[in-house]
Amino acid sequence: MSLQAGRGHAAYRSGLDRNTANFAALTPLSFLARAAEIYPTRPSVVHGAQRFTWADTYARCRRLASALQQRGIGRDDTVAIMAPNIPAMVEAHFGVPMAGAVLNALNTRLDAASIAFMLRHGGARVLLADAEYRATIAAALALLDDKPLVIDLADPEGPRAPPLGVMEYETLLAGGDPDFAWAPPGDEWDAIALNYTSGTTGDPKGVVYHHRGAYLNAVSNIVNWGMPQFPAYLWTLPMFHCNGWCFPWTLAERAGVNVCLRKVEPAAALGAIRRHRVSHLCGAPIVYATLIDADPALWEGIDWRIAGQVAGASPPEPIIAGAEARGIDLTHVYGLTETYGPAAVCAKHPEWTAMDLSERAERNSRQGVRVPMQEAMVVLDPDTMQPVPADGETLGEIMFRGNITMKGYLGNPKANAAAFAGGWFHTGDLAVVQKDGYVKIRDRSKDIIISGGENISSLEVEEVLYRHPAVQGAAVVARPDAKWGETPCAFIELRPGQDATPAALTAHCRAGLAHYKVPKHFVFTDLPRTATGKIQKFTLRQMAKEIAS
Amino acid sequence: MSLQAGRGHAAYRSGLDRNTANFAALTPLSFLARAAEIYPTRPSVVHGAQRFTWADTYARCRRLASALQQRGIGRDDTVAIMAPNIPAMVEAHFGVPMAGAVLNALNTRLDAASIAFMLRHGGARVLLADAEYRATIAAALALLDDKPLVIDLADPEGPRAPPLGVMEYETLLAGGDPDFAWAPPGDEWDAIALNYTSGTTGDPKGVVYHHRGAYLNAVSNIVNWGMPQFPAYLWTLPMFHCNGWCFPWTLAERAGVNVCLRKVEPAAALGAIRRHRVSHLCGAPIVYATLIDADPALWEGIDWRIAGQVAGASPPEPIIAGAEARGIDLTHVYGLTETYGPAAVCAKHPEWTAMDLSERAERNSRQGVRVPMQEAMVVLDPDTMQPVPADGETLGEIMFRGNITMKGYLGNPKANAAAFAGGWFHTGDLAVVQKDGYVKIRDRSKDIIISGGENISSLEVEEVLYRHPAVQGAAVVARPDAKWGETPCAFIELRPGQDATPAALTAHCRAGLAHYKVPKHFVFTDLPRTATGKIQKFTLRQMAKEIAS
Repeated sequence: MSLQAGRGHAAYRSGLDRNTANFAALTPLSFLARAAEIYPTRPSVVHGAQRFTWADTYARCRRLASALQQRGIGRDDTVAIMAPNIPAMVEAHFGVPMAGAVLNALNTRLDAASIAFMLRHGGARVLLADAEYRATIAAALALLDDKPLVIDLADPEGPRAPPLGVMEYETLLAGGDPDFAWAPPGDEWDAIALNYTSGTTGDPKGVVYHHRGAYLNAVSNIVNWGMPQFPAYLWTLPMFHCNGWCFPWTLAERAGVNVCLRKVEPAAALGAIRRHRVSHLCGAPIVYATLIDADPALWEGIDWRIAGQVAGASPPEPIIAGAEARGIDLTHVYGLTETYGPAAVCAKHPEWTAMDLSERAERNSRQGVRVPMQEAMVVLDPDTMQPVPADGETLGEIMFRGNITMKGYLGNPKANAAAFAGGWFHTGDLAVVQKDGYVKIRDRSKDIIISGGENISSLEVEEVLYRHPAVQGAAVVARPDAKWGETPCAFIELRPGQDATPAALTAHCRAGLAHYKVPKHFVFTDLPRTATGKIQKFTLRQMAKEIAS
Repeated sequence: MSLQAGRGHAAYRSGLDRNTANFAALTPLSFLARAAEIYPTRPSVVHGAQRFTWADTYARCRRLASALQQRGIGRDDTVAIMAPNIPAMVEAHFGVPMAGAVLNALNTRLDAASIAFMLRHGGARVLLADAEYRATIAAALALLDDKPLVIDLADPEGPRAPPLGVMEYETLLAGGDPDFAWAPPGDEWDAIALNYTSGTTGDPKGVVYHHRGAYLNAVSNIVNWGMPQFPAYLWTLPMFHCNGWCFPWTLAERAGVNVCLRKVEPAAALGAIRRHRVSHLCGAPIVYATLIDADPALWEGIDWRIAGQVAGASPPEPIIAGAEARGIDLTHVYGLTETYGPAAVCAKHPEWTAMDLSERAERNSRQGVRVPMQEAMVVLDPDTMQPVPADGETLGEIMFRGNITMKGYLGNPKANAAAFAGGWFHTGDLAVVQKDGYVKIRDRSKDIIISGGENISSLEVEEVLYRHPAVQGAAVVARPDAKWGETPCAFIELRPGQDATPAALTAHCRAGLAHYKVPKHFVFTDLPRTATGKIQKFTLRQMAKEIAS
């Protein structure tokens, strides 16, 4: 063995290759096997009167994988599901990839044309379909030449509907093998899931996840949140949204219990929290608003602390205060479908706890820093690809790099080239970097308002509006203006029993904003929201255009 | 885009490749950068009067990497270190691989000939040498033709000695660049560390770790232990032992503080625990015995709970009881140098806490199950490679599979072929599988005693001996016997102030063991131990041979 100065020790380059003993493809499927091995009798999934253990769930997922393989489903085949947060949705996250296939969870709020587009574009060969969406699914199927094999999901907690498919899900499982010898993916880069982004313009884009990323994000969730073993996790976040931020896989690792919920409704959600002693949940600010504003009687007996991750929008001060009053410890996270859900976290510092509410709210409103297992999050000038200074002022675009970034968009080379230009994933979110290195979003590129040549952050204006006691929801968009190019137009959702006038809100805004940033128009209305609770600014921009001067 | 029945959706196989935005080599070095970015002012390392923050540590590690590269050190070059648990040892775990090189931490208890063998075999180009081992190191260097560049470590907390190397470590760092632009490894399979096993026969074998495994085990430590952020970790486990089970990297991820300790001695260890409010530590049972048996005055003021991982041998009942009395929550883990330290854990079930001490001790004495990020741990018949039944009786060999298994032994194809035979890593430990799937070691292959054709587990006999109130340490080995082939011979370390006779111990053993398993000879002596606290049975076997019948 000779030592070659400057070229390394040659022995490191011989006989130390991968073999089946020292290398395994990273896949979150291994967490399910481990939970079933070590904690077979602990609860895995509860839903209404249904109760499953980890041994049950493992057997049911193996049955599903086996039944799919019997029907010719394998590697790179898409299996779609249109369902709320029910046990079959949890099982599909394991059973489909255990067959080697790719799970495409569909947004249950979409119309038939969108669903038909996704089934066609994603090449779905099987569709698991909940009875609640029977009409939409039937209409979508009518638009397809190549129809998938449809399996009906007849959830006992859901509505009844005549069958649409070839058989019911439980019948499919009954024909599967509970001891099915599933194999991990041949390559950890193999696709595990396909998630369509709800683009407001153009066709939806199909975001492809791989086993490696799903594994690492599932673990990053644990490390980032300090999530202990055996959590009771309430499904307030749709599993069709970024695969529930990868939490179905996280829960298997933690041997926790998935508390299912068809719909986020105060009595059902708080009833489940009390009954199952829920310890963790995730959702948009609206989820927390729903819980906080619920009838106090529904909170009776819930006297333990609950950990909540909030994303989709910064949690406004009243939500932070309301959550604290109810014993919910909020952690603000940020990400996109393209980053498997959260890839950033407003990581808390112990000294923040001593700050007063408004200061704490300000700190926690930031998108923050990369999660533990993402490699980099930066704010770059998208033209020069140079980092902006950490001055809290200079606007740039948030970009990510690392293993918690999608493989790419399915069959969309043009979108991939744009998304990955310069070797970074471009989020489209405009932000500044504060002095402590924390990132704060100013706006989506397309949401920025340019008035008289000045950039106005719609989020900055909204934050001021949220501080008004009568304001429950606020969204500010650009309204075309002959003189200024654009001016800010505010859409306001008032708190029940509260009132406010445009003049009062204008005065409130003037106290906290530069004059040119104050909305010129106020519209009092219910805000249109997506399935994940995001306000649909696209719709509001249309409405703003139509307002007479 | 065409749908090819049975062959997958072709779109998944085009345009979804790795790029710099969506793929990064897994490396624990990224944890240091993140800790310095997010928590620059939090403490990273404390040692005597020395205090470092994560910003300091990052800058010092970059200086070290830069200074090494200036001297021509790069990929696949070995940099050795012979030091106790001091700040430079923590820094070497990052600075050396940030230069692209491989860290070889040497066992500080070894003799000059062994050290010379390792420096030669590992091709060490640089040696960082603590003053305490000057004589051994000088003697080792005298045996080498190709000598490494020696850098002196002059720890203010350690002994003084005349310089041996070309410069002192702090001088080396002063010439390095604190903003050095280090690069992650080109391939996550690149070597990060080399650790020689302390084989009792034959030449030591050089176990090679890669960045991927070090990253995954560092994270597995967090997930497995439920380790929260900002732990205060006391270095009672030598960092030269499996890179401290990868905890230097784990601590960077958690932004915790490394509490250094040159030597595990009651006053120093308990002083550090009190001063730095230590929350976590690891070690062999002897470490816990040292703490538990310390003067109660040293425990004054330590009233918080401490989490302890114990490995190297099952924790006997008195240690479990003593730890509980002192507020130490023990977790029993199991692994080998070849598995980056612990790759198995006796995962606790909540219902165990209600059991009485002896039952709890029995449950926790098992090696258990694979850790979260290892893929498989099985007990196979090494001849047929078939799993043994989970009957608690049938003996097989523990084997591992997964990413927390070494690349292989450096320059040792024969040993690699044996270690990885049949696609599993062979541990050499003989065990049974209990009804609940938990693995329990019966013996090392070489420690089993065969008497009159019957296998006797030395561990089983030792467990019975440990239950005798006078026994502090016990080790049972085979003694050649003309009639029986071998008979068990017990070496006993008595508790201070306690006494026992061979007749009393024989009676005690007869009450708990089959007659043929009771030792025929008892020797009262101090037990020889390795640096990591393991009893050296090799030495005892020699002694047993020399006992007259």
